[in-house]
Amino acid sequence: MLTRQPAGRRRCRVTAIMVYLTRKAEFSASHYYHNPELSAEENQRIFGKCNNPNGHGHNYTLEVTVKGNVDPRSGFVVDLKQLKDVLNREVLDAMDHRFLNREVPEFLTRIPTTENLAIAIWQRLAPKLKQAKLHRVRVYETPDLFADFYGEA
Amino acid sequence: MLTRQPAGRRRCRVTAIMVYLTRKAEFSASHYYHNPELSAEENQRIFGKCNNPNGHGHNYTLEVTVKGNVDPRSGFVVDLKQLKDVLNREVLDAMDHRFLNREVPEFLTRIPTTENLAIAIWQRLAPKLKQAKLHRVRVYETPDLFADFYGEA
Amino acid sequence: MLTRQPAGRRRCRVTAIMVYLTRKAEFSASHYYHNPELSAEENQRIFGKCNNPNGHGHNYTLEVTVKGNVDPRSGFVVDLKQLKDVLNREVLDAMDHRFLNREVPEFLTRIPTTENLAIAIWQRLAPKLKQAKLHRVRVYETPDLFADFYGEA
Amino acid sequence: MLTRQPAGRRRCRVTAIMVYLTRKAEFSASHYYHNPELSAEENQRIFGKCNNPNGHGHNYTLEVTVKGNVDPRSGFVVDLKQLKDVLNREVLDAMDHRFLNREVPEFLTRIPTTENLAIAIWQRLAPKLKQAKLHRVRVYETPDLFADFYGEA
Amino acid sequence: MLTRQPAGRRRCRVTAIMVYLTRKAEFSASHYYHNPELSAEENQRIFGKCNNPNGHGHNYTLEVTVKGNVDPRSGFVVDLKQLKDVLNREVLDAMDHRFLNREVPEFLTRIPTTENLAIAIWQRLAPKLKQAKLHRVRVYETPDLFADFYGEA
Amino acid sequence: MLTRQPAGRRRCRVTAIMVYLTRKAEFSASHYYHNPELSAEENQRIFGKCNNPNGHGHNYTLEVTVKGNVDPRSGFVVDLKQLKDVLNREVLDAMDHRFLNREVPEFLTRIPTTENLAIAIWQRLAPKLKQAKLHRVRVYETPDLFADFYGEA
Repeated sequence: MLTRQPAGRRRCRVTAIMVYLTRKAEFSASHYYHNPELSAEENQRIFGKCNNPNGHGHNYTLEVTVKGNVDPRSGFVVDLKQLKDVLNREVLDAMDHRFLNREVPEFLTRIPTTENLAIAIWQRLAPKLKQAKLHRVRVYETPDLFADFYGEA
Repeated sequence: MLTRQPAGRRRCRVTAIMVYLTRKAEFSASHYYHNPELSAEENQRIFGKCNNPNGHGHNYTLEVTVKGNVDPRSGFVVDLKQLKDVLNREVLDAMDHRFLNREVPEFLTRIPTTENLAIAIWQRLAPKLKQAKLHRVRVYETPDLFADFYGEA
Repeated sequence: MLTRQPAGRRRCRVTAIMVYLTRKAEFSASHYYHNPELSAEENQRIFGKCNNPNGHGHNYTLEVTVKGNVDPRSGFVVDLKQLKDVLNREVLDAMDHRFLNREVPEFLTRIPTTENLAIAIWQRLAPKLKQAKLHRVRVYETPDLFADFYGEA
Repeated sequence: MLTRQPAGRRRCRVTAIMVYLTRKAEFSASHYYHNPELSAEENQRIFGKCNNPNGHGHNYTLEVTVKGNVDPRSGFVVDLKQLKDVLNREVLDAMDHRFLNREVPEFLTRIPTTENLAIAIWQRLAPKLKQAKLHRVRVYETPDLFADFYGEA
Repeated sequence: MLTRQPAGRRRCRVTAIMVYLTRKAEFSASHYYHNPELSAEENQRIFGKCNNPNGHGHNYTLEVTVKGNVDPRSGFVVDLKQLKDVLNREVLDAMDHRFLNREVPEFLTRIPTTENLAIAIWQRLAPKLKQAKLHRVRVYETPDLFADFYGEA
Repeated sequence: MLTRQPAGRRRCRVTAIMVYLTRKAEFSASHYYHNPELSAEENQRIFGKCNNPNGHGHNYTLEVTVKGNVDPRSGFVVDLKQLKDVLNREVLDAMDHRFLNREVPEFLTRIPTTENLAIAIWQRLAPKLKQAKLHRVRVYETPDLFADFYGEA
């Protein structure tokens, strides 16, 4: 923590304190569920109305949680502007207002379920975060359904 | 209002009292914005990233408001089960998990904006409501944008 | 509006400006739906699982809207502390943590539907508000169902 | 409404249909309540802890509703990008991350209550909107308190 | 993860990836707090207005979190339809529109606090989930109060 | 858990069951970000518009999570009235309607970021909680940004 030092004392005593910071973002996208290795009947049985190849859509809400020590100079775990830039460049520019199955590379071969979205977003963000460590990616498909991924393999 | 009458008094004094009742529902659909009478450049200028023909999607929230007198026998303006049945049959079955531009007849020739969705849903519901009168259709495209239609021509 | 006057000018130019102010409050109560003038079968048909005489409950959200001119001395349409006191005394003390059918006088003879709750709360509040006029009472039974009453008979 | 015309028919039948469109925006600001024409005791009695001259703050939520006919070419009542630009330039740039009493001209002489904020935002927006007409400005000071202004004098 | 295999390669490389999936549901119920082993005075002191034997009610929100590996065939941790069926059969059918103290067996002898509700719902669900493992049960009594149970004894 | 014992059996079998209980509270405050050890340019670069010394404000939402065994006599992990009293006395009375940088002692020398607020609130609450152990302090600065502190040094 930042402590204003008495004059003449230059040394800054810093205690590492771990805080988790979460930023929400939203994007709108369409998708459908289909596994080309399964029969039409199996696809229909497993995916129901989500199997409609025209697609349907959602307002996805994304929560990105990073963890790290609070920087005593800024009081921040992470520079929010940098975090926002990474989120925009790596995730929102690629997924917002897109048909996930056709326009987002990961989902040409993976089914864009909420679970797989959380994993793909983790894989996009984790290597780009420098100051703080990615802790959790949460994706809400609707207000009543969400998936959490912590990078656990 | 319902008033329990003393035995021997059969006449039921009813005062008409107008109440507005609102029911919310949600559906997920995809759409895009395109006017075939305009050039590609004009479409891009007016609709921006919503012009992507692959479509993108939303969790739409629909609020249907009916108005009517409170029935003294039930305390209801409208039978909620009947209202729900009409909503499901006329709107949700047709629009949920659909690509609006291709699968909902109104949007083969109209652009599926939030405004036009509110109008189309009004036109589907108004003739089917019997007990109470349709007062307002509100459609949220996202939590930050909604359109209200009161049947005003 | 309040306008700071130059010294020596005492006259205060006031333009009446109408603003609507809404305050939310919450209460938890239980109720059930039953009309003693109907048969058991009719009660079951009309009210379904709401007919269970043991009762069930809700976190009700109440929105009280008053309208009036902005007081140039305070910038307020209504003194919020007074509004809160009236709300507590007339509504929340009587209904919060109560079984509406048994403990709130209006509902000994009226069915405690969302519609009738909005009417009863209006009737309790309207005569007690002095500064501003009651404009609307909205009662949410759940986040997906609400009734509005504007005092229209 | 937009209707795709058969080839050779140029005339476009347009029915004026009135829709109300609402956009939300958020800003964070600080304020305090004080009327220099009143004594310190009166200020304290009327404004309580809001009278603290250091100020305190809120995440304000603003809902701007415009009304107009749906443009058959676009399906829009208003160009959302233009609406957003006006909102940013006239309101958010001036009020976000500001101490309202000191930095926003209207509140040098008016008390920045929720009511007066709704009026000031109306006065800033109404002359700048061209396509559609301003219908309502709603300002939430907290999720439990909001003011509506419809331009009624 | 699902990877579309080149023709002739049958072996499916699967990496176990742990994702947590959460489903929300709501139910309305009434309850009161009373311990028959305590005196009336102690019950009143500990439980206050929650001790009213007529009961009061809430819209409970339930979040059920399961954890498991993503199935490469479906992209799912759990079949949502099966999860919904278990939730309806084991919890909602038993508790929705009920007076918990009188109609739900667990609460004939346990006090239906938010804490005990979370435990009871865990005990009902854990043995019935097959594909994925129950990770957490969260119960909101109101939007401002919730209990989490992770099966920790 | 509370189990009603057959007459003549006095011994109370108690199984320790760990539940996490979370209470939300809200407060409105203003703040700004500034590190006196940095130059004006550095402050502007790091903190942007948050560096405005007039301050700006937020409706903060605070979630306090305690963990403990369920008391078999009450069904509670913690007495909610006591928890509320501690929260009011230690946090809300000190921070609500305050300019954090000037009126809250911790922030005379620390920057009142969301991270540092979570730490300061933990340090105020942890020593005062007796029945149950503080598990997490979550502070929302806006609905889209929050910090979690678990007491990890």
